[in-house]
Amino acid sequence: MADPDRMRTVADHVARCRRRGDDVTLVVSAMGKETDELLHLAAQVSAVPSGREMDMLITAGERKAIALICMALEELGVPARSFTGSQAGFLTDTNHRNAKILEVNPDRVSESLDSGIVPVVAGSQGVSTERDVTFLGRGGSDTTAVALAKALNAQMCELYTDVSGVFSADPRVAPSARKMSEISFDELLEMTATGCPKPAMRSVEVAHNHQVPLHVRSAFTWEPGTLVVQAIESESSVEQPIIRAVTHDMSESKVTVVDVPDKPGVSASLFRSLADRGIDVDMIVQNASEEGRTNISFTVPTEHLERAEEAMRSGVITELGARTIGINPKIGRVSVIGAAMKSNPGVAATMFETLANNGINIDMISTSAIRISCVVAADRAEEAVQYLHTAFGLDDR
Amino acid sequence: MADPDRMRTVADHVARCRRRGDDVTLVVSAMGKETDELLHLAAQVSAVPSGREMDMLITAGERKAIALICMALEELGVPARSFTGSQAGFLTDTNHRNAKILEVNPDRVSESLDSGIVPVVAGSQGVSTERDVTFLGRGGSDTTAVALAKALNAQMCELYTDVSGVFSADPRVAPSARKMSEISFDELLEMTATGCPKPAMRSVEVAHNHQVPLHVRSAFTWEPGTLVVQAIESESSVEQPIIRAVTHDMSESKVTVVDVPDKPGVSASLFRSLADRGIDVDMIVQNASEEGRTNISFTVPTEHLERAEEAMRSGVITELGARTIGINPKIGRVSVIGAAMKSNPGVAATMFETLANNGINIDMISTSAIRISCVVAADRAEEAVQYLHTAFGLDDR
Repeated sequence: MADPDRMRTVADHVARCRRRGDDVTLVVSAMGKETDELLHLAAQVSAVPSGREMDMLITAGERKAIALICMALEELGVPARSFTGSQAGFLTDTNHRNAKILEVNPDRVSESLDSGIVPVVAGSQGVSTERDVTFLGRGGSDTTAVALAKALNAQMCELYTDVSGVFSADPRVAPSARKMSEISFDELLEMTATGCPKPAMRSVEVAHNHQVPLHVRSAFTWEPGTLVVQAIESESSVEQPIIRAVTHDMSESKVTVVDVPDKPGVSASLFRSLADRGIDVDMIVQNASEEGRTNISFTVPTEHLERAEEAMRSGVITELGARTIGINPKIGRVSVIGAAMKSNPGVAATMFETLANNGINIDMISTSAIRISCVVAADRAEEAVQYLHTAFGLDDR
Repeated sequence: MADPDRMRTVADHVARCRRRGDDVTLVVSAMGKETDELLHLAAQVSAVPSGREMDMLITAGERKAIALICMALEELGVPARSFTGSQAGFLTDTNHRNAKILEVNPDRVSESLDSGIVPVVAGSQGVSTERDVTFLGRGGSDTTAVALAKALNAQMCELYTDVSGVFSADPRVAPSARKMSEISFDELLEMTATGCPKPAMRSVEVAHNHQVPLHVRSAFTWEPGTLVVQAIESESSVEQPIIRAVTHDMSESKVTVVDVPDKPGVSASLFRSLADRGIDVDMIVQNASEEGRTNISFTVPTEHLERAEEAMRSGVITELGARTIGINPKIGRVSVIGAAMKSNPGVAATMFETLANNGINIDMISTSAIRISCVVAADRAEEAVQYLHTAFGLDDR
């Protein structure tokens, strides 16, 4: 929702959907830079604003957007009614700035729908179990949309984004990346967990767990995008691995706790101290103890790096008896995602070779049943995506 | 297929299914210890038998079983016809002892079905692109069944095992483990990739990629088992993590390549040398470079440990400039599997704390979007499963 023009375009699209006979509920995020501006305002009046007040402030952004969209709809003769997260029945936990949805009771939204009035719901917000306004944080609007689609038992949840669908790699990085007409939930989940920016991983988790059909599509071209399905009918031979996509993530930093005693409880206190601060830890790698000491590395969103470092320095390091911690924000994580990789060891070998042949060093490795990730130097990550996209034959399909 | 009695029981079950109006195709593995006995025979006549002859020998086991089952069926008045892997149309690659299925052309099986004659197909075998008999290796019979179900467009693939379904943990280890009535494909895939012994991971990969509905059930009690579905309707609150199962795997060993130069190509030559020897590498962990050197750890099936060690010692270590390699066969891998773990950092913290509180040290860690795995000492692994099963509330559900 960048500006009034965009709002009119969206309203026009909604009017068309209605004319085709679809019942539509809108979930709207804040306008363009609105949230950033609000954050900036807060920073000017308070060094450490309380979570409760921050959420009260930030959610004003969506509040403006829903009202404006309703006005634009009414202008087109489409009856519409705005709902805050609370009004739409979003009950969350009390974790301000990053609240999680506990329940959705969309009675008022349903009533509006039943009366032929388009409900326009504020994304990324709710009311906590302590009756405070909460903000869902990053990816909140997509998650609101999916959870609402589930609660309303909607036929489809369409996520409109600035990209035209899910791609086999980021098209800005790999120009030969293809838009996929379909992707499976578990593959998309690994993709969004490893850097595919849209849709938000949280929303994919909720959609997957609650079986909400997704359509990821462009809010600009209105062309069909990518359908997220339970499974994709494989065309390749029975037991061959099927590489679907290459993702990369430049938003993380690496923290290494160096030379820590290899004894029970080390990882526990480390990760509890991070979890308590609400820091999402991503890749966790603990390796090879030698002479009773080990290194533990993990990646965190760079925006949480300071908090993570603080968590480490405030006791954890001395408590654990670690020698020091190492911080490396200049990393990129490159991942290959696809089916049947686990029983085909050649996939990992091909990935490592492709990087090696191009002189790209691997810093960390981690694998799952449908993914292999390598951490490499930040300034080589985009190249790595291109080489891997080519090596796994994704260019020319 | 332990003995003639079991064969009669199976034949009886098939007869019942037919009376209920179901078209049935049987996939049969070798009798009880048959395969082991054939391997033992081979060892007595040759130190290093060729792969081609080994496959010729081993596949004789299923050949006997299909013929005997057909006889038992005919005895009950059920017309039946046996098919080898080749006759059933299983085309594989040329990788003897561990061949992968390329295509299934089940014309003869279909004809038999259409004529009302029960096809009885030898599991775990096929014919290679070079027209040699091939053995599919571990998990081959389950994989044959799934691939055949797909090729025949069957309504359901029932995998009869010695357990009554898929459990939230190994019931021998965690007595409070529950049989799940349903499990999703991606969760079962991670479970079988981390130690859940039945069904074979390969077969789950194929079923997942080709959308073959599975029913994992007991060949002894005939009670309903676990249905493998695309997704499970979640009952918990919208964004809470749902821990589904705790798995453990005692079949792997850890190899650490110690103090290797941290430069491009190291992982590549390491894992290519393993892939070339057909060694399935499981967990791969590379950590934290210090002063330009790093350690790389990975796990391999203990039965491949010797080959892996050989691969390392035959050049790789000197080539790479590693100081030495460390081998630890006394490990167990314990994993927690479930949905929405990635956006809930508390799950990892709880896992680590549970282990720590019970004095169990963590040796390696690896994570995916729906799994966290810890390598621990072999003699603490089973306890770890119990503690985690309890900690994640799986006991009392």
